[in-house]
Amino acid sequence: MNFYENSIELHKWKKGKLEIKPKVPLENKNDLSLAYTPGVAGVSQVIYEKPNLVYDLTIKANTVAVVSDGSAVLGLGNIGPLGAIPVMEGKAILFKKFANIDAFPICLNTQDPEKIIDIVYNISPIFGGINLEDISAPNCFYIEEKLTELLDIPVFHDDQHGTAIVTYAALINALKLKNLKLNEIKIVILGAGAAGIAIAKFLISEGAKNIRLVDRHGIIYPGRKDGMNPEKEKIASIINPEKEKGELKDALKDANVFIGVSQANLLYPEYIKLMKKDPIIFAMANPVPEIMPEVAQKEGVRIIGTGRSDYPNQINNLLAFPGVFRGALLVRAREINQEMKLSASFAIASLIEEPRVDYLIPSPLDKRVVPKVAEEVAKAAIRTNVARIFKTEEDIRKELKIMLGGEDDE
Amino acid sequence: MNFYENSIELHKWKKGKLEIKPKVPLENKNDLSLAYTPGVAGVSQVIYEKPNLVYDLTIKANTVAVVSDGSAVLGLGNIGPLGAIPVMEGKAILFKKFANIDAFPICLNTQDPEKIIDIVYNISPIFGGINLEDISAPNCFYIEEKLTELLDIPVFHDDQHGTAIVTYAALINALKLKNLKLNEIKIVILGAGAAGIAIAKFLISEGAKNIRLVDRHGIIYPGRKDGMNPEKEKIASIINPEKEKGELKDALKDANVFIGVSQANLLYPEYIKLMKKDPIIFAMANPVPEIMPEVAQKEGVRIIGTGRSDYPNQINNLLAFPGVFRGALLVRAREINQEMKLSASFAIASLIEEPRVDYLIPSPLDKRVVPKVAEEVAKAAIRTNVARIFKTEEDIRKELKIMLGGEDDE
Repeated sequence: MNFYENSIELHKWKKGKLEIKPKVPLENKNDLSLAYTPGVAGVSQVIYEKPNLVYDLTIKANTVAVVSDGSAVLGLGNIGPLGAIPVMEGKAILFKKFANIDAFPICLNTQDPEKIIDIVYNISPIFGGINLEDISAPNCFYIEEKLTELLDIPVFHDDQHGTAIVTYAALINALKLKNLKLNEIKIVILGAGAAGIAIAKFLISEGAKNIRLVDRHGIIYPGRKDGMNPEKEKIASIINPEKEKGELKDALKDANVFIGVSQANLLYPEYIKLMKKDPIIFAMANPVPEIMPEVAQKEGVRIIGTGRSDYPNQINNLLAFPGVFRGALLVRAREINQEMKLSASFAIASLIEEPRVDYLIPSPLDKRVVPKVAEEVAKAAIRTNVARIFKTEEDIRKELKIMLGGEDDE
Repeated sequence: MNFYENSIELHKWKKGKLEIKPKVPLENKNDLSLAYTPGVAGVSQVIYEKPNLVYDLTIKANTVAVVSDGSAVLGLGNIGPLGAIPVMEGKAILFKKFANIDAFPICLNTQDPEKIIDIVYNISPIFGGINLEDISAPNCFYIEEKLTELLDIPVFHDDQHGTAIVTYAALINALKLKNLKLNEIKIVILGAGAAGIAIAKFLISEGAKNIRLVDRHGIIYPGRKDGMNPEKEKIASIINPEKEKGELKDALKDANVFIGVSQANLLYPEYIKLMKKDPIIFAMANPVPEIMPEVAQKEGVRIIGTGRSDYPNQINNLLAFPGVFRGALLVRAREINQEMKLSASFAIASLIEEPRVDYLIPSPLDKRVVPKVAEEVAKAAIRTNVARIFKTEEDIRKELKIMLGGEDDE
């Protein structure tokens, strides 16, 4: 595939994708004595005396760690920290390009959850937020939960929440188009890793009543023997207390929505017939979806989303994480809570006034997305009392304009 | 002091001093698909298969962590990780400005040496080198030693080795000026922290035979009761096996050289008389030296160095660390060994053809310093077989010219 070769060439060009640059002048003795010793001692001293000033006098307020243990990198699986670096560098530069956030990749030599928690806690002083990335389930749930407890800055596992936010945004508009309500429909989620479980939780919190979560061992039910973990057990007892068993095709019977976060070609064309008429199909496996759009269309499916940029309705985390962190950092949020995540979904969905089957969500390159998401997330943080600083709606909009308009202004 | 206020204003201006920027275009779908998914999967896959490619396809080859636990920040002492951030940011941008190296500050929430070792080891995959900074003695010795064993990238505690390299460079030229040999003179080092002990070790390795190391409890000797630690004990048994005791003034009797890495005004003017005539005084405490140059001059001292930029002979780590890391990274050195450090001292000293009392070492702003140090360090790495890649002298010079001339070329 020539495509991969082009990507390798790009990475070789400048040896990686990011650099770290001074924001202050360093031309002469005076510059040095203000930016470094002896002047910097005065800055260190005031931060020591008033720790909150760290947000005003250092990069903390605008800096995010992109942390991975390399255990679940893209579709490649457990390739370890070195293989993870290009992905985390990529994520870091997207933070800068889309949200003017400085992000640095941290790729860990360990996959022990207790160690990861300890390390991230201990390197956190310089960061205003932690983006966890490509950490396998079920460790990712435990790591995020513990770090959220320990730290007073946002901790956000993008594979879970980014995916859930954008999937729900697309679903909001798909349901609007079909005039359906979330609490009346049946949803099948294929894939019970970080994304699948997070989507299920997200939809439940919004009122979904009928969800089947399916993995390679079939429908997940409480007490199942194969391939279970505490997170699956927990979600199973909520969504499937009646312990329905079966395969994907059993789950799909009369389902309105299929959400795939699994692997290529797992949704056979003939399964579509088992679902309700005119179903909603989000087949998000990358790079090859659970069912190719043209195949689904042959079965009469109109509403299709994938993870790919070469088909309509690209359900891409890039619609969420830059704006979510931008909003959270803007008001120095202590965490990214459910209300903030939901407000991101609604912000994304709201950018499409009249959804069409081929236009459920905006493109990740749509310039309206990040400011809108950031604004709504910041407002939700203030509303839910997790913001360290209060800002008016007007100030939020004004500051976002400066921050997001200013990314190329050097 | 208005000076500190100006520094605080500078730090407030753009909230900190560094930013993280993309080196590759991210303007359209095609750019995104090469720099991030799906193209990046190809890059991750080849690194997973051939880990050495991480040096060609990611930022690792040019990226250094500046790591501190905030336990010994400048002259401020143990002010913790938040207070350390401005200093580590400053160091990071000096790396970029002077050596075109991308450096990121890591400020740790722990001062437990075992934890620090574990954390640095585990975050090391993305870094080509580790600069330890402002970590108190004696932990700094143990941490550096263990990390050097564990990691196959250079680990360099600048407070130790940077100071030793530059002090020795100044001493080489001071001795040349006075036509003295290192193995014939008596040297008194005041301060037995990271810098003092490192300087002593460094000078011993170069043949110094008569060194007295003095701290607040007086001359250090084996078995001393107060204020000892394993490192002091070890060095004491080498330099003072005869167990000479006494105060600073006893040590100074007939000394040719005073090296101060302690605190303001500890070298009383009347002590100068105890030393050999026309002594060499390096009073490097910051911001106020062990003796002010004008005070020493009144006692007839001609050869004086300090840490300050407003007097001649500024003995400043900035002369060493950028070139040392540049040279080490250029040939992907596995470590920074003694021969590389010594070659840095000689490189710095060699830039002054005819030393004068007020011109023993070049200014840190002298453009010749970093290329010369980097070249000699790279050559020493190759000579001592710690370089991962071989380069000819000509290639080293050519590549350094591109790297160091290119820092402002965007």
